[in-house]
Amino acid sequence: MSESPISRFFPPDLADVPSDVRERIAAVEEKSGFVPNVFLALARRPDEFRAFFAYHDALMERPGSLSKAEREMIVVATSGLNQCHYCVVAHGAILRIRAKDPLVADQIAINYRRADIAPRQRAMLDFALKVAARSYEIGDADYEELKSHGFSADDAWDIAAIAALFAMSNRLANALESRLDIANKAAIAATSHASSSEKPWRFRSS
Amino acid sequence: MSESPISRFFPPDLADVPSDVRERIAAVEEKSGFVPNVFLALARRPDEFRAFFAYHDALMERPGSLSKAEREMIVVATSGLNQCHYCVVAHGAILRIRAKDPLVADQIAINYRRADIAPRQRAMLDFALKVAARSYEIGDADYEELKSHGFSADDAWDIAAIAALFAMSNRLANALESRLDIANKAAIAATSHASSSEKPWRFRSS
Amino acid sequence: MSESPISRFFPPDLADVPSDVRERIAAVEEKSGFVPNVFLALARRPDEFRAFFAYHDALMERPGSLSKAEREMIVVATSGLNQCHYCVVAHGAILRIRAKDPLVADQIAINYRRADIAPRQRAMLDFALKVAARSYEIGDADYEELKSHGFSADDAWDIAAIAALFAMSNRLANALESRLDIANKAAIAATSHASSSEKPWRFRSS
Amino acid sequence: MSESPISRFFPPDLADVPSDVRERIAAVEEKSGFVPNVFLALARRPDEFRAFFAYHDALMERPGSLSKAEREMIVVATSGLNQCHYCVVAHGAILRIRAKDPLVADQIAINYRRADIAPRQRAMLDFALKVAARSYEIGDADYEELKSHGFSADDAWDIAAIAALFAMSNRLANALESRLDIANKAAIAATSHASSSEKPWRFRSS
Amino acid sequence: MSESPISRFFPPDLADVPSDVRERIAAVEEKSGFVPNVFLALARRPDEFRAFFAYHDALMERPGSLSKAEREMIVVATSGLNQCHYCVVAHGAILRIRAKDPLVADQIAINYRRADIAPRQRAMLDFALKVAARSYEIGDADYEELKSHGFSADDAWDIAAIAALFAMSNRLANALESRLDIANKAAIAATSHASSSEKPWRFRSS
Amino acid sequence: MSESPISRFFPPDLADVPSDVRERIAAVEEKSGFVPNVFLALARRPDEFRAFFAYHDALMERPGSLSKAEREMIVVATSGLNQCHYCVVAHGAILRIRAKDPLVADQIAINYRRADIAPRQRAMLDFALKVAARSYEIGDADYEELKSHGFSADDAWDIAAIAALFAMSNRLANALESRLDIANKAAIAATSHASSSEKPWRFRSS
Repeated sequence: MSESPISRFFPPDLADVPSDVRERIAAVEEKSGFVPNVFLALARRPDEFRAFFAYHDALMERPGSLSKAEREMIVVATSGLNQCHYCVVAHGAILRIRAKDPLVADQIAINYRRADIAPRQRAMLDFALKVAARSYEIGDADYEELKSHGFSADDAWDIAAIAALFAMSNRLANALESRLDIANKAAIAATSHASSSEKPWRFRSS
Repeated sequence: MSESPISRFFPPDLADVPSDVRERIAAVEEKSGFVPNVFLALARRPDEFRAFFAYHDALMERPGSLSKAEREMIVVATSGLNQCHYCVVAHGAILRIRAKDPLVADQIAINYRRADIAPRQRAMLDFALKVAARSYEIGDADYEELKSHGFSADDAWDIAAIAALFAMSNRLANALESRLDIANKAAIAATSHASSSEKPWRFRSS
Repeated sequence: MSESPISRFFPPDLADVPSDVRERIAAVEEKSGFVPNVFLALARRPDEFRAFFAYHDALMERPGSLSKAEREMIVVATSGLNQCHYCVVAHGAILRIRAKDPLVADQIAINYRRADIAPRQRAMLDFALKVAARSYEIGDADYEELKSHGFSADDAWDIAAIAALFAMSNRLANALESRLDIANKAAIAATSHASSSEKPWRFRSS
Repeated sequence: MSESPISRFFPPDLADVPSDVRERIAAVEEKSGFVPNVFLALARRPDEFRAFFAYHDALMERPGSLSKAEREMIVVATSGLNQCHYCVVAHGAILRIRAKDPLVADQIAINYRRADIAPRQRAMLDFALKVAARSYEIGDADYEELKSHGFSADDAWDIAAIAALFAMSNRLANALESRLDIANKAAIAATSHASSSEKPWRFRSS
Repeated sequence: MSESPISRFFPPDLADVPSDVRERIAAVEEKSGFVPNVFLALARRPDEFRAFFAYHDALMERPGSLSKAEREMIVVATSGLNQCHYCVVAHGAILRIRAKDPLVADQIAINYRRADIAPRQRAMLDFALKVAARSYEIGDADYEELKSHGFSADDAWDIAAIAALFAMSNRLANALESRLDIANKAAIAATSHASSSEKPWRFRSS
Repeated sequence: MSESPISRFFPPDLADVPSDVRERIAAVEEKSGFVPNVFLALARRPDEFRAFFAYHDALMERPGSLSKAEREMIVVATSGLNQCHYCVVAHGAILRIRAKDPLVADQIAINYRRADIAPRQRAMLDFALKVAARSYEIGDADYEELKSHGFSADDAWDIAAIAALFAMSNRLANALESRLDIANKAAIAATSHASSSEKPWRFRSS
């Protein structure tokens, strides 16, 4: 597909990839306008590709009281903790769209405790980050705290499972040294072009 | 299935579980003589059940230069780091069988640096534990070290991906507060019965 | 100036602020199109305002072999380590402009080890982050490493002193709970408007 | 005594060891059926041998409200924290016997917070592990918590002193690189022989 | 001034130093009887010298409810945390004088939680050390705790800003490898001369 | 002996203490001019008293290539790491006497890496502090490093065992909340009297 490396591992020739994997890649390209590197990287291993995205979809698109934006908040906070640059940028972009808020992704990636989010969302991220960093200390008090914010048992499962899924995903992307998606590069470049004008921050008068 | 809790979450009634999930549970029971709690816990969520075991099988049963025992070594070392009691006991039992070595599992769970393993296996665990603990620092030197022990690029992927998969699995088991499998309890009890006799350690004269 | 809080502390009435401080604030507003919150926050204490910016300018605008972009790289990396959201956003914006690179700031904030920077810059950040995190371990080997990349003694001082200055600045902004600058909010919002269109990432065909 | 090393240091020739030390070694062999490596290792230094076991006995066999099993719980939890493989296996075996519970030792070694123990025992281990990991933070609240579970001042001393004694013992065993006792190897091997049969976990039907 | 190095960097020839800097150095020498190394080290860079001492004086000599001794307590505790030997000795000496207490400096440097200080001072140091170690976690509860001990908003600013200033100063002194001041060496030597007599601790009968 | 508490635990009435313990206390008082609190605290438990000092003497007064001053260096460095205020002050005083150096104790307590000690002593402390902080990582390279500085196997044992003994002693003193010895208070007060004169640091002209 391209000569530029997507990670420490070269992507497979898409012609050699099983058709169901190729179709999923085509679908994401149709929807997003580009193929995220994680799809190309995992295509090297079709069974892992299928399992990963099956798990991802089961958790991220599951009906429930957590909104899709809130699910992405967990992903971004976890990715910040694990210092996964690829994940923060890719899921930060999704969070900005789903939360309809341009600010919240950076806030959550750097320090979710200072993000402009609801107390319920703060409690959700406290639980998620404890799962991410010290899951062996999770106990009654943590579940009680979630309950006091109106979360159900299945919400608690969702939060824990998303934090756990990205404990995996962050480590895999870091270990494979995934590179930033070209499209994200283009998006940031487009933004930056505007902001590198002579008086880059004069927005009030515009 | 049982009144005793398997984790913070009650298991589903198996009659309500999709048939493919039920069949997989029956197969593991046929093979092992019991149903491990992780199967019962995940059966609450069939899509996650399917994805988890698909991912697990893709990595743990994949042909390659890593033996099945070596794959379990990674699991046990990672589970020790993450203080996942369920995972250490369940996978320690598998490792003892696969390695045909009664000692190595405990050694690896507590401190893999002192385990009686080959230098190549020590290098494998150094890489795996770095992925588990500080994946953001993985770099050229880590891959070079693996290569110097004869590992291929795909071996490196396997090691990283197994460590990452159990970063997820350990956190999920901890957060759901999975309880020890009854069968493992029985196995340990059987052992202990012998060893709690009056002179429990007198093995030399036997 | 505004009813919206800039931090846990209310900003002073600018009419009550000494004229030299007010003039510096006017100058930054003229240049940037807005008044960054850090100027408003510190204006509450004119002596600290003067000392802080005097120190800042002495280090960040000092002639020397470190470029202005490189100095900002140190700031952004340190601010990421210290989880200072205000600092990452404000200095990330400056770095994007000075480095003429839209990507490098996020890379450095999340994990500088994976950023697309020169080996010399990587060595610079290794030293800076060691000063930030474990200054008591700095020794001969660290200075030798800098020297091997062509840095002079005064470059080493610059790197250490910038990392140290933002050890202070990050902690102060965090402790005062500085809020994101309005202008940065506007800039991010402008970007986001584009990217929340129906096919947000379709840049290739544009 | 044997060609196989017991640790990084060779054991002394028992013929050269003072008679009181030799008698103590004979006594433990008579009782246990083997000589634990820690006795052989310390016999190299008779004064340290005498002082260590005098301290050990003073704390572990002292009358008081803590049962002998509870004292071993502290040892196993501390040894897990300090990643002392020798200590976890040796004292885990003693704990299994004293607690008449085959399961509790592994639970406590990996994550005592999840062990099936009484709330009073959980409080005891919370205190012990705080002494082991952050003794400089011990204060009024910690003693109050112990008191609320019915512990006396001398119980608190016992808990702290046992955790402290094994802070020493774990470090010494780790630094000397103590090897697993042959007898423990035999015990585990005996168990493993049974469990490596074709259907290793089929215990329900037996 | 001397051939002996004051740090990794040689001090400038005072004749080459701007007169205002030289006058400040003369003033401290007049008052203290010696020139602390930090003055000599920073004289290499007059702009940084001026800014540093301006910031220092603005915070350490500011009128307010915190006494000068209390301000030094923050400095010593922070310097202990950051393992800055130069700072602990230099500011420990000042604290002993200001607190009119020969003991408190060592107590605070090693473990402020055990120091013989008032509850209000303990709360002050809890806040300061949290700013020093985990400023990203500062929040409502920390400010409420300060308030409950009678601290005002500006006191909180003072505590945070002093902890932040020495986050900088400790790192700079460590990175530049500042050496102990000759005068402090002399002071300690004078003391030691007495205490190295034959029965060094016989004070009761004197 | 005194109404003032020596720790969280009251000291026993010396009349009730076994005569051998009382004689040891009298001997240290005769030699030092006071009774250190650690003797009074442990006298509450004669068996532990005897074992502790037997172990202490076996290691600290053992003939060997490590000087007594070097043995105390290990104690002070370990006590600094473990934030044991009582231990740093008590053993810092001994170290100053044994090293005939008034400066080295503070240097080692705060950051031994910057202390004015020989390379061989730096290597000794590197090993000791690794035993104190991460004994589970000790391995071949650590022993090789010691050997390259001329240390024998028994020297390595001494270093490890002293670090381990004070891992215990520091934790016990911290947990029992040992208070500073009166005599040390007097010693520091005597020093401080001189140094709190009007121009406390004017030593050059004296």
